[in-house]
Amino acid sequence: MSVILYSLCAADGRRHYSPHVWKIIMALRHKGVRAEVRPVSFADIAAIEDGSFKSVPVLNDNGHLEGDSFEIAVHLERAYPDGPTLFGGPGGQAMARFVESFSQAVIHPPVSAVAAMDMHALMSPADQAYFRAAREKRFGMTLEQAAATREVELAALPAKFAPLRGVLAKQPWLGGQQPLFADYILFGVLQWARITLPHALLPADDPVSAWFERCLDLHGGVGRSVTLSDH
Amino acid sequence: MSVILYSLCAADGRRHYSPHVWKIIMALRHKGVRAEVRPVSFADIAAIEDGSFKSVPVLNDNGHLEGDSFEIAVHLERAYPDGPTLFGGPGGQAMARFVESFSQAVIHPPVSAVAAMDMHALMSPADQAYFRAAREKRFGMTLEQAAATREVELAALPAKFAPLRGVLAKQPWLGGQQPLFADYILFGVLQWARITLPHALLPADDPVSAWFERCLDLHGGVGRSVTLSDH
Repeated sequence: MSVILYSLCAADGRRHYSPHVWKIIMALRHKGVRAEVRPVSFADIAAIEDGSFKSVPVLNDNGHLEGDSFEIAVHLERAYPDGPTLFGGPGGQAMARFVESFSQAVIHPPVSAVAAMDMHALMSPADQAYFRAAREKRFGMTLEQAAATREVELAALPAKFAPLRGVLAKQPWLGGQQPLFADYILFGVLQWARITLPHALLPADDPVSAWFERCLDLHGGVGRSVTLSDH
Repeated sequence: MSVILYSLCAADGRRHYSPHVWKIIMALRHKGVRAEVRPVSFADIAAIEDGSFKSVPVLNDNGHLEGDSFEIAVHLERAYPDGPTLFGGPGGQAMARFVESFSQAVIHPPVSAVAAMDMHALMSPADQAYFRAAREKRFGMTLEQAAATREVELAALPAKFAPLRGVLAKQPWLGGQQPLFADYILFGVLQWARITLPHALLPADDPVSAWFERCLDLHGGVGRSVTLSDH
């Protein structure tokens, strides 16, 4: 039995900051699957396993390779049917795609702009050069210019979580009475922010913050095992 | 066997325009449950069944009363287990709440502003007076002032559907390979707009428009049975 999760890390080799990797760290714990989390830099990605991957996470589950966070979750649901479900049935699997799409379209872009300079500060010089080139191409501006939008993006961010807040008024998790992979999708974004930013993304009295704290408590508090101040 | 769905109607008694009623028209057809759709005006709502309801839809399913669209869907799933599932399991039921919350928080407010004057034009004089008072209180401005924002709201609307568009790039329905109640939730909003507005809300070449057309084809084309030009 050998399960390896490849994860982007800060220069210290400890602070895993990728939101997509965090989805899978939580999903593996949820299923009770022990895995070795192997830190990589951007330059290492092309050399992971069979060399076919362009991003992390990558999972090697006893020889079975998967390289997309959602597909990894689908694989885990199928490969470990005796563990707690990650989707709660076919409808939950289909609709987790909506949560993923919401996260990518609505939450990722502003967090990406807000966190850009703080992420950069955590990286090794080689990763910094790669990250700067890739992000400046995506943003169409320098990292410093993108960071200049952070106050505006931060002020607009709480309203963007309104759909999650509405659900939490009715049930404790996106998954209902227990967390499912959909919870880990949005947890991943807030965990990414928690590990890279020196300040909170949302007010402490926001129900979304209370839900995030509950997520951090899950699975032996694995989410709390990495903090910005780790060194 | 007697199933009655109370539905807000235009003055003509035919154009059901409530997005929440449309969710249930589709859910009943999905389950293969025949129902009488009984038109009501705003003034009639307080007199529906036991007089405890403040909005539509209200469903009387052989004496069992439900007055919230999501709770009606939950009831139908439980009461008609032999019909096709509306949720695809417990995870799908939990996550349909996220789709509902997204619809309410992100899509309803702009459509409500865009459609206000056109809805008003369809109503009986008594409903017009009720609607004007209620909406002007909610908007904090006159209907005419709210309608003046319509060009801005319309221009911003396609981007708000990005989370649905992202899902439709991966699968034909929010429910996956077949429609589920989550599809009917967002269908309801676009059907409300289709029945009340003289123009389309989204461009014809938008994948969301193609999905909406597929929704209109479902269940014998029941969604196409009502149009703005009906009289």
